[in-house]
Amino acid sequence: MKLAIINGPNLNLLGKREKDIYGNLSFEDFSAELKKKYPSLEIICYQSNVEGELITKLQELGFSTDGIILNAGGYTHTSVAIADAVAAITTPVIEVHISNIFAREDFRHVSILGKNCIGSISGFGLQSYELAIEAFMRKV
Amino acid sequence: MKLAIINGPNLNLLGKREKDIYGNLSFEDFSAELKKKYPSLEIICYQSNVEGELITKLQELGFSTDGIILNAGGYTHTSVAIADAVAAITTPVIEVHISNIFAREDFRHVSILGKNCIGSISGFGLQSYELAIEAFMRKV
Amino acid sequence: MKLAIINGPNLNLLGKREKDIYGNLSFEDFSAELKKKYPSLEIICYQSNVEGELITKLQELGFSTDGIILNAGGYTHTSVAIADAVAAITTPVIEVHISNIFAREDFRHVSILGKNCIGSISGFGLQSYELAIEAFMRKV
Amino acid sequence: MKLAIINGPNLNLLGKREKDIYGNLSFEDFSAELKKKYPSLEIICYQSNVEGELITKLQELGFSTDGIILNAGGYTHTSVAIADAVAAITTPVIEVHISNIFAREDFRHVSILGKNCIGSISGFGLQSYELAIEAFMRKV
Amino acid sequence: MKLAIINGPNLNLLGKREKDIYGNLSFEDFSAELKKKYPSLEIICYQSNVEGELITKLQELGFSTDGIILNAGGYTHTSVAIADAVAAITTPVIEVHISNIFAREDFRHVSILGKNCIGSISGFGLQSYELAIEAFMRKV
Amino acid sequence: MKLAIINGPNLNLLGKREKDIYGNLSFEDFSAELKKKYPSLEIICYQSNVEGELITKLQELGFSTDGIILNAGGYTHTSVAIADAVAAITTPVIEVHISNIFAREDFRHVSILGKNCIGSISGFGLQSYELAIEAFMRKV
Amino acid sequence: MKLAIINGPNLNLLGKREKDIYGNLSFEDFSAELKKKYPSLEIICYQSNVEGELITKLQELGFSTDGIILNAGGYTHTSVAIADAVAAITTPVIEVHISNIFAREDFRHVSILGKNCIGSISGFGLQSYELAIEAFMRKV
Amino acid sequence: MKLAIINGPNLNLLGKREKDIYGNLSFEDFSAELKKKYPSLEIICYQSNVEGELITKLQELGFSTDGIILNAGGYTHTSVAIADAVAAITTPVIEVHISNIFAREDFRHVSILGKNCIGSISGFGLQSYELAIEAFMRKV
Amino acid sequence: MKLAIINGPNLNLLGKREKDIYGNLSFEDFSAELKKKYPSLEIICYQSNVEGELITKLQELGFSTDGIILNAGGYTHTSVAIADAVAAITTPVIEVHISNIFAREDFRHVSILGKNCIGSISGFGLQSYELAIEAFMRKV
Amino acid sequence: MKLAIINGPNLNLLGKREKDIYGNLSFEDFSAELKKKYPSLEIICYQSNVEGELITKLQELGFSTDGIILNAGGYTHTSVAIADAVAAITTPVIEVHISNIFAREDFRHVSILGKNCIGSISGFGLQSYELAIEAFMRKV
Amino acid sequence: MKLAIINGPNLNLLGKREKDIYGNLSFEDFSAELKKKYPSLEIICYQSNVEGELITKLQELGFSTDGIILNAGGYTHTSVAIADAVAAITTPVIEVHISNIFAREDFRHVSILGKNCIGSISGFGLQSYELAIEAFMRKV
Amino acid sequence: MKLAIINGPNLNLLGKREKDIYGNLSFEDFSAELKKKYPSLEIICYQSNVEGELITKLQELGFSTDGIILNAGGYTHTSVAIADAVAAITTPVIEVHISNIFAREDFRHVSILGKNCIGSISGFGLQSYELAIEAFMRKV
Repeated sequence: MKLAIINGPNLNLLGKREKDIYGNLSFEDFSAELKKKYPSLEIICYQSNVEGELITKLQELGFSTDGIILNAGGYTHTSVAIADAVAAITTPVIEVHISNIFAREDFRHVSILGKNCIGSISGFGLQSYELAIEAFMRKV
Repeated sequence: MKLAIINGPNLNLLGKREKDIYGNLSFEDFSAELKKKYPSLEIICYQSNVEGELITKLQELGFSTDGIILNAGGYTHTSVAIADAVAAITTPVIEVHISNIFAREDFRHVSILGKNCIGSISGFGLQSYELAIEAFMRKV
Repeated sequence: MKLAIINGPNLNLLGKREKDIYGNLSFEDFSAELKKKYPSLEIICYQSNVEGELITKLQELGFSTDGIILNAGGYTHTSVAIADAVAAITTPVIEVHISNIFAREDFRHVSILGKNCIGSISGFGLQSYELAIEAFMRKV
Repeated sequence: MKLAIINGPNLNLLGKREKDIYGNLSFEDFSAELKKKYPSLEIICYQSNVEGELITKLQELGFSTDGIILNAGGYTHTSVAIADAVAAITTPVIEVHISNIFAREDFRHVSILGKNCIGSISGFGLQSYELAIEAFMRKV
Repeated sequence: MKLAIINGPNLNLLGKREKDIYGNLSFEDFSAELKKKYPSLEIICYQSNVEGELITKLQELGFSTDGIILNAGGYTHTSVAIADAVAAITTPVIEVHISNIFAREDFRHVSILGKNCIGSISGFGLQSYELAIEAFMRKV
Repeated sequence: MKLAIINGPNLNLLGKREKDIYGNLSFEDFSAELKKKYPSLEIICYQSNVEGELITKLQELGFSTDGIILNAGGYTHTSVAIADAVAAITTPVIEVHISNIFAREDFRHVSILGKNCIGSISGFGLQSYELAIEAFMRKV
Repeated sequence: MKLAIINGPNLNLLGKREKDIYGNLSFEDFSAELKKKYPSLEIICYQSNVEGELITKLQELGFSTDGIILNAGGYTHTSVAIADAVAAITTPVIEVHISNIFAREDFRHVSILGKNCIGSISGFGLQSYELAIEAFMRKV
Repeated sequence: MKLAIINGPNLNLLGKREKDIYGNLSFEDFSAELKKKYPSLEIICYQSNVEGELITKLQELGFSTDGIILNAGGYTHTSVAIADAVAAITTPVIEVHISNIFAREDFRHVSILGKNCIGSISGFGLQSYELAIEAFMRKV
Repeated sequence: MKLAIINGPNLNLLGKREKDIYGNLSFEDFSAELKKKYPSLEIICYQSNVEGELITKLQELGFSTDGIILNAGGYTHTSVAIADAVAAITTPVIEVHISNIFAREDFRHVSILGKNCIGSISGFGLQSYELAIEAFMRKV
Repeated sequence: MKLAIINGPNLNLLGKREKDIYGNLSFEDFSAELKKKYPSLEIICYQSNVEGELITKLQELGFSTDGIILNAGGYTHTSVAIADAVAAITTPVIEVHISNIFAREDFRHVSILGKNCIGSISGFGLQSYELAIEAFMRKV
Repeated sequence: MKLAIINGPNLNLLGKREKDIYGNLSFEDFSAELKKKYPSLEIICYQSNVEGELITKLQELGFSTDGIILNAGGYTHTSVAIADAVAAITTPVIEVHISNIFAREDFRHVSILGKNCIGSISGFGLQSYELAIEAFMRKV
Repeated sequence: MKLAIINGPNLNLLGKREKDIYGNLSFEDFSAELKKKYPSLEIICYQSNVEGELITKLQELGFSTDGIILNAGGYTHTSVAIADAVAAITTPVIEVHISNIFAREDFRHVSILGKNCIGSISGFGLQSYELAIEAFMRKV
């Protein structure tokens, strides 16, 4: 089973900023742990701050992997183009968020791309990614 | 570890209505399976169609259990009173939905109680409940 | 033919309050008249002020009766949960209102449950119920 | 007793378009049936696609008939001028719709002229007209 | 000096309906009085309930008269097409209303055609028309 | 003089939750104090988390008491049905809130039932109830 | 007959600013002309930039004059307090504007005080005041 | 191939008004040119200022022609009834506008009838009509 | 204990206008009564129609008195500047209204300054002021 | 004559996804056909998923080509920056869409960049591009 | 060069309230420093809590000074009348704010008078005034 | 002291487009002048049309420079992702705009990133940048 984790803008700062909130684990370290924990899975990780590069990567991976875990960061609330990309590909996508988007500012309550994903998990810190893997493994 | 699953209006019809969408597993059968799968957990299940009874149950269980999994059904989008109850109790609450609320009608995109929950999982069918249990077990 | 009339909050006050507007006929008296007028029909009447009890009753009667006449009173404009119940059952539902909801305050112009009903009759006083019975008898 | 049925834009296509939805009964045939079914009533039928002609007809018939059954079609949701005409005449008006307006697009949920009518019946196909006749006969 | 008075829907009922509010002077009588009072003016009066006929008349008179007094009735608040006609002609137009539109329902506070008129007079009963004539005579 | 205090959802938790904000006086203790302080008054206290039970109690007490003090909690902002009940009864109702609703979230600034109450007192902690009693005693 | 003209903020600049639009006639000169033209009338003129002083003047003149012509300038669109003052006095008030408020920015289309005036005249330059005098003289 | 061009309100003024913007070609002249340019096509032209007459014409031509080119002018933004007519007929309709509706006032950005047309062309002056003909000829 | 009552626009008309609603007690007479009733209190009364003078008075009294009772009249719903003044001073402020603001027009339901006051009392006529004094005396 | 076609996000998937809707012609093949069909034209094609790269390309080509055909895909509805680029360049731009944007979701009805284009063509499949070429060739 | 600083409501409290946020420098002291720092400039300072007095001062200084620095405080967000005054005068006006208005409550994000100023500076504490002086000195 | 100037989309066209508005100074020339004028400062300049590259640059420079001057161009009004980047870095950011954003279209009045900046300067042409440098030098 081949899964991809695609991270959007500012998620490259994980473990480097606001450590009191997010902990001091970088995503690189976290993904290494994930791969160790789920040895039977092939897990591809990608991050970009550029909206269009996220689209390109979704297109690249969206016909050949078994599942994509997408944290589009700030683009979640504004990007019709990423939502269109999610709709265009055949791989199922799960939307994840580290923090609970309903507990933040009003403009973060709306997910433009949510309607094209199969499900959504938010609020569990880095565990949100792990729960998404569990979801794919249960063959949702 | 002691967890409660609280289900709101119309969820008692699971397995009886719209079987082509939701499958023919009733929540009673599903919860029996859950208990078997997680023998180390004490799992309490409760369902009511009455908004105020859900509040009363949240108050009853909200100071003594380790986690509450709440699917408030149609009250998710309208009930300030349930949101207040979630805020008033000390047990952490995870909001779950069987279907992906962002893929349904506009008025279902807003969760009034989401801001008082620690996290939200939606779109994975009955697996949403199981992922919430996993989340509590990872000591979020 | 078996029909049910389900009345929501404050409709138990009919004939007791604001008699100059609504007349001094209670719903009990009116339903007795109805049964006399339509002897071939089995007519079940139910009233509750509790949103969740209305849902429970809709579920109870919604698979075995031939038609439900629903006056959800103030819940008409706020209850996603009752609307979900109407969608979940198989018996067709007609929405009725004693007064013309378009001639009252703005927030009463919107019916959340209307979209799941087969039709709507409002403004004819207690005759609204009788017209709904006529509608069911014509096998709409 | 003298009643008028006034039909607005596109209702002249009944029985000619979308027969799978509306049946293949034209309004001419239907009104002939109505007249046969209610021989004691004088029933006048009128149709126009022109908003102003509907107003003129309402004025013409609105002081001499006992009731008007108005299906203003698409003008229901936009015409202040027809609403003013309904308010200006002395004959009571019942608003009817063939389909359930609450089950269609959002902009059809609002009836500008509803507030000046005595009641509203929608969703019962051509039976909506017949129920309106019944309502007038019961001396609402 | 040649002026035109163009009246929209339902204004043909003046003096016939709601006499307690509007008096029992018909517009025909009123315009006869006007012509007597202003013998040096040529005054053309026109009324139609049909939006498009009002447009046609505005086009007809809008290049040859010295001023048009327009009471578009209920179309005031909804007609982009009449507003376009007012913009297209070269004769200046004054908008009049018998009642004070700001003292009525909210949807009457907005005049779509007001922005293309040179001025607006409302609330003075039939005197609104006379004040508009005064305004044209002062060569505004 | 006979007064009723009707408390809505979550107010049974007073003195048990968030003591730093609300103090550690339960409503039971507070009402005992009230009764001692105003020995000439008959004071009935009632609490329910269920919207419909609050309506039923308003109907029960709303024709025989001299005043009702209503803290509808979270239902204040959502319940058309309670507002209808307040309108239907003959006993005057004063709306009270422990905290100042204008100093909280936006959705708490609107009181749906306020328009049917004679007055409103908010922000004075449990003293809000006592001020409402004073208001009734002054024969507002 | 005793009339008052009350001018709000920035109207003291008439004839001094934007002369290409408003002409070079100051309000002082214009009011002198008015008095000469209508010798039988007692005309009082007042201007203030201060909202509260306009209210005080409305109160002072609002029980003893036969008519008030009010151009509240920028306060037209924002002042609930001036609207309340107009409602509180017994002298009838006509709202005037030099320019056509419907032809300016959107926020100028709304008149908060219009609903308490008997009529409104806008768009005729300084002639708007004169037309208002004519309106009062016709004993509207 | 048989095509119809249906023009709405004020389009009869083309070539007569605002020549600096629209040129001095009348629609009659333009349509003569069109017919010469496309000799193999049968082209029917119709114009009316009356909303209902446009509906009637759409119904007349909407079952027998191969394509309709509709410029509904000001009705584009307000007419549910024309939109319903477009939906009811079987001939495909292309919406055209002479000016670019997105470059004009906000209320012109919305096309109520657009959703029932197969396509939309705006901003190319009279060429918009010609491009629509091209579109039909390519057998869209 | 030193309290101030600050009244905004039009409240100087109390007892002079609309006596059937507000009674014929002027605020001067009422305040004399208040001072007699509460001899131990020092009560300062101030009224102005000028928004800025109310601000100046709030600043003057807002650091030396024990409580301010503020009825800002029409400025309640529009004045950010008064709200800022209430926030800037150290004396606690109670907002009062003679009528129930929730039972009046929609634009009166919003209090801009409410969020900076400790509490709000409305609907009890002149008793609203007396209840506010009671509130301060209970050392809210 | 030198024209550019600039395609935005996801348009590189044409002919590869949802072939039942869009056909199985890729944009590469289509542009080859276009070049063959219009041998006298120089046609440059560019696609990018990156918003900023589309801006850079518009700047590059926007001073030297004779026309730009822009399908900005999902950025159409969200990109102020692309709209600014269209406004900054001197080459005229025609907006095209493959599907009819008025027949899709509400958020697709608004084109942020439309106001800076000379015209708009939507709903004709790949023919939309060809019609835009025709429009440029007619020297709009 | 002659500059004026005009301060609106509550700015007279600077250095007296909330010193932890704004420092303990009063505006009098600050302006003395400014004059010392810019000896070549004539700097006039004015403060009023009264909206209309600010307008009067803008009119007084708005034709004879070289620049006005305006901090309208709470009136920034509500005053059409001050905005009109800024538009009417010939001296250029720079809008300043001590705090960053975009980082405060939503209703402070809108500046009604901003559109009539040449520029805006906010968020730099009392330095905002100094930067505005710099801007005028650079002959913006 | 080390400062960075980050320019967003279309700002590379400065001095090349609309020279009558913006002058013919390119940003390269302007920054050269700046460096000469402030020899003690280290000034880094960066421009990109790509939203994500601006984020990457903010992250790169946002922990090591003493101040960032950000003109995000059209992304100012739409980019949650840039706002998040500004919040994540530790260097203080000043938002600048060449034109006065309050004097342009409505959608430009809102700055999504403003709330995370320390201050905002707009409307002073290229001097806006210089004023921002002054602000940083005064150690705001």
